[in-house]
Amino acid sequence: MTEHTATSWFFNERPKDLISETTLTLREHTLPDLLEGEFRVKTHYLSLDATNRVWLSDWDIYMDPVRLGDPMRGFVVGEVTESRNADFPVGSFASGMASWADYVIGDAERFTPFPIDKDLGHAFAVMSIAGPTAHVGLHHVGELQDNETVVVSGAAGAVGLMVCQMAKRRGCRVVGIAGSAEKCQMLTEEFGIDAAINYKTEDVRDALGSACPDGIDLCFENVGGDILDASLVHMRDYGRVVICGLISTYNTKSPTPGPYMFRNIIMRRLTMRGFVILDYMDLMPQVVADLGAWMQAGELRLPLHVVDGLENAVDAVNLLYTGGNTGKVLVRMH
Amino acid sequence: MTEHTATSWFFNERPKDLISETTLTLREHTLPDLLEGEFRVKTHYLSLDATNRVWLSDWDIYMDPVRLGDPMRGFVVGEVTESRNADFPVGSFASGMASWADYVIGDAERFTPFPIDKDLGHAFAVMSIAGPTAHVGLHHVGELQDNETVVVSGAAGAVGLMVCQMAKRRGCRVVGIAGSAEKCQMLTEEFGIDAAINYKTEDVRDALGSACPDGIDLCFENVGGDILDASLVHMRDYGRVVICGLISTYNTKSPTPGPYMFRNIIMRRLTMRGFVILDYMDLMPQVVADLGAWMQAGELRLPLHVVDGLENAVDAVNLLYTGGNTGKVLVRMH
Repeated sequence: MTEHTATSWFFNERPKDLISETTLTLREHTLPDLLEGEFRVKTHYLSLDATNRVWLSDWDIYMDPVRLGDPMRGFVVGEVTESRNADFPVGSFASGMASWADYVIGDAERFTPFPIDKDLGHAFAVMSIAGPTAHVGLHHVGELQDNETVVVSGAAGAVGLMVCQMAKRRGCRVVGIAGSAEKCQMLTEEFGIDAAINYKTEDVRDALGSACPDGIDLCFENVGGDILDASLVHMRDYGRVVICGLISTYNTKSPTPGPYMFRNIIMRRLTMRGFVILDYMDLMPQVVADLGAWMQAGELRLPLHVVDGLENAVDAVNLLYTGGNTGKVLVRMH
Repeated sequence: MTEHTATSWFFNERPKDLISETTLTLREHTLPDLLEGEFRVKTHYLSLDATNRVWLSDWDIYMDPVRLGDPMRGFVVGEVTESRNADFPVGSFASGMASWADYVIGDAERFTPFPIDKDLGHAFAVMSIAGPTAHVGLHHVGELQDNETVVVSGAAGAVGLMVCQMAKRRGCRVVGIAGSAEKCQMLTEEFGIDAAINYKTEDVRDALGSACPDGIDLCFENVGGDILDASLVHMRDYGRVVICGLISTYNTKSPTPGPYMFRNIIMRRLTMRGFVILDYMDLMPQVVADLGAWMQAGELRLPLHVVDGLENAVDAVNLLYTGGNTGKVLVRMH
């Protein structure tokens, strides 16, 4: 019966700020027998994403929140070890929305087959998580044009890095905002973006003015708060602001004000759009084809920040909110 | 030489909050002789608009601000009394961007011919000012669809009233927010909107929840601040927020936070767009044709709040910020 046992993180107590080990507790439990159409997945990688914190809030969010007592929700990739679904045979791989667990039960609604790759973690991070969000946000929501000036906050995070590279391949001037000198150096030297601003040591508003002398056409926002305010000052007339994330506001219980330069939505005649990648599943065939082609062309790569062991998942997710990661945070289990 | 003399309001001192008689000072001065292409207009009506206050701020706005020492800028309509432009003959009427003055000099760049109407003030208010802003904001920027739920703040103001009527003629459920019981009664009883909320006596957030049980498809925002926050709570997924004005934030020197429910731009996947009517002059032929047709069909009317005498213009403009007006504020001079 060993294979029917799983270890999962359960939602125990609503967090006041950062997720802690009283927020989530790790527990062994028995998995039920598979129903017709279901399959069991041995989880290789769990993706940790900024929106995880949102799922634990008492806000009215974009999907059902995780309920107290339920397993913590997360994106995983792994190997099918038992199956009652012919499209997901034993030995194949699958990725999908499941839970923070070493074994999960999947079905065709929440999972898709995942091609076996020599670097499973990298392929998962690029093709299933950060790549689609960046691609859809930049091209479909943000309507990126060639040669624009693009500002990316959270630029050394997984989505930010993808956005930077996708904008560069369109000939854009790309300015990234990140939280350390090392991240900034990586962005300009390894990823070839035009300028990087360290928000912990620089005046972001002034630095953006220097880095974007003709103003910003497209702001790809992952952070919110003061960082978004700084970009709003420098938006060009008719610019677009894509709101992908507002990570600076997720770990607070008290109401957080919107940007102080909100009036620039009129003064600069901006279009500001929020999006959630789950709404764009119909675009995935084209998105995955594009991502594959760009990776093959060497235009797209993603550093991984791999944390070993499910028991370290809480520490791992908090890297996102403290800026401790560079690139994609994954927990590796098998 | 009498006809070469004008009386104008001049920008004297930057306002701290409301515009006062130290902000603007009234003074007689000599108008220069007409250049080729120019004409003199005897001003019949001056339009007072919420954005007037923005023009006097030290913000980086959507056009050149009014400079200290210059005449105060404003939209006017009047009769041509002397002309060196064959398209604007003496005795014809013209409207355009000029200044708060009893006589102004116009040219073809800033003025358009205005058809002589039995009710000049009403025609000016509807066709030149509030009508175009409402029409473009609702249909072009907001992409209004039939039978949607539309919330309008500043609903008893000139633009608000136009928006309410335009949305009603498309079969929408229209909910207005205004600042007195009388305004609310007028909105529901005389203009036939579905519900009106008095923000001075009601909890707007709760009241919107009751008035929009299925949520809000389109928020037409003239006010900002708490009022916008209340609407953001109730937006439907993929809703649109048209930012036409943020009048609640114009009379403050200290930085004003954006909406506290800003996160709902992601959670509800909203599109928020600011606009300035001056960007849409190419649409005016169709807009004017539509407005004329809707007025003739009895679908569009606009109460005027007429203040007599240029010397009362400062009091008149402040009606907008204190909520003292219903409908369009005009100063009548001749």
